[in-house]
Amino acid sequence: MQSNLDLLNQINIVMVETSLAANIGSAARAMKTMGLRNLILVNPREALNRDAYARSSGAVDILESVKVVDTLEQAIEDSVFVLGASARNRHFPWPLVNPREAGEEVLARAPTGKISILFGRESSGLTNEELSLCHRHVHIPANPEYSSLNVAAAVQVLCYECRMTALGTEANNNWSEQREAEPANQEQTNGMFQHLEQALVDIEYLDPNNPKMLMPRLRRLLLRADLDQTEVNILRGILKQMQKTTQ
Amino acid sequence: MQSNLDLLNQINIVMVETSLAANIGSAARAMKTMGLRNLILVNPREALNRDAYARSSGAVDILESVKVVDTLEQAIEDSVFVLGASARNRHFPWPLVNPREAGEEVLARAPTGKISILFGRESSGLTNEELSLCHRHVHIPANPEYSSLNVAAAVQVLCYECRMTALGTEANNNWSEQREAEPANQEQTNGMFQHLEQALVDIEYLDPNNPKMLMPRLRRLLLRADLDQTEVNILRGILKQMQKTTQ
Repeated sequence: MQSNLDLLNQINIVMVETSLAANIGSAARAMKTMGLRNLILVNPREALNRDAYARSSGAVDILESVKVVDTLEQAIEDSVFVLGASARNRHFPWPLVNPREAGEEVLARAPTGKISILFGRESSGLTNEELSLCHRHVHIPANPEYSSLNVAAAVQVLCYECRMTALGTEANNNWSEQREAEPANQEQTNGMFQHLEQALVDIEYLDPNNPKMLMPRLRRLLLRADLDQTEVNILRGILKQMQKTTQ
Repeated sequence: MQSNLDLLNQINIVMVETSLAANIGSAARAMKTMGLRNLILVNPREALNRDAYARSSGAVDILESVKVVDTLEQAIEDSVFVLGASARNRHFPWPLVNPREAGEEVLARAPTGKISILFGRESSGLTNEELSLCHRHVHIPANPEYSSLNVAAAVQVLCYECRMTALGTEANNNWSEQREAEPANQEQTNGMFQHLEQALVDIEYLDPNNPKMLMPRLRRLLLRADLDQTEVNILRGILKQMQKTTQ
């Protein structure tokens, strides 16, 4: 698990001729939240300024270790795999992946060398020539009527997908792993349902001669919640107290 | 396919006490790129200003149709399913999903009614009380050493996952499509919880001077089950009968 997260260090985020330093700061923050740290700027239009540092929030370390180069070729010279963010399908088709597939391809190749993910200008993205340097184009499947993600938002989505892949499926949180108590076993669950049925008879809500579908409905409801042992005990405590009031 | 994208209109993005209007503008842009359009602001700290419009870029229509309310309860009153973005595991665990699972759950439930996804304050997120109104907490699995995503970046990731699910092909068979009754809305659910609390006081199971964690535990249990309207009515029928026995 740890080693997969370490692979995120193999990824360079490369921002090409970014106009606003503020967007570089936001991108640094986005990267750091997802555990990436290598940022390369190709010929930025604005030097890192107060806006950039403000937007980077606590990710100042990424701005301070940023590498600035003159050409895209310099930025990617040591990369074994290059992806370029592309706003749309170009007229000259190129192998195109979505961010999820990009995350999978990046992590699959990261053990073999550096990976670069390129992000273009705010106004016009990457040029066709720049895109032709890429092994893959990555397209965030945006609303065709309004597809212009902020560049730092695009960095966030790509870094997020890389991290999701690095974490692997077992990182998916599910309730049964988070809960504080052991799940209730059959005996406990069934004991509770019998107790529930009796208590509902005692308070004269359930007519044993005409039970209708009440118990199946309550079973279905409570079984959906996957009760744990503490919860079964609470429910039985309530039932016991309900019965007391009828005596 | 088209109909699945239409389901994105069922989703309300709810921003709670956002400090900076600029972040609201960025969130509107993030939403629109992913095909969402309903934004609700709960008690925003700054009115929509020039910064907000600048950051929204072409998503001005979302800002112009924004709904502003005083309380979170108002924002979610017509929602059948509520998710709250949570930066970390709380000491009182709640069913927790990652953004991908959140997208799947949201789209599965969208045919049955409105869905709210809540985003808290820039500084401190959502309060425990606000989080207790949610059926699920959603956690972006960030770098534990630096987990603070910008709120608009978090909106981007969640909206992206909803769109990815909407674009997916297979329509999973799932509980919310099979159920016989309409899902319970906020008013029905909260009315039932208030009734439950009173009934437990009446039968002297809940001590109002020493409530401990009983109600949060029961909320968590029953919210996990995604109650429908018939089930709420059954539970209230039981509660009414419980109260009768104490008179």
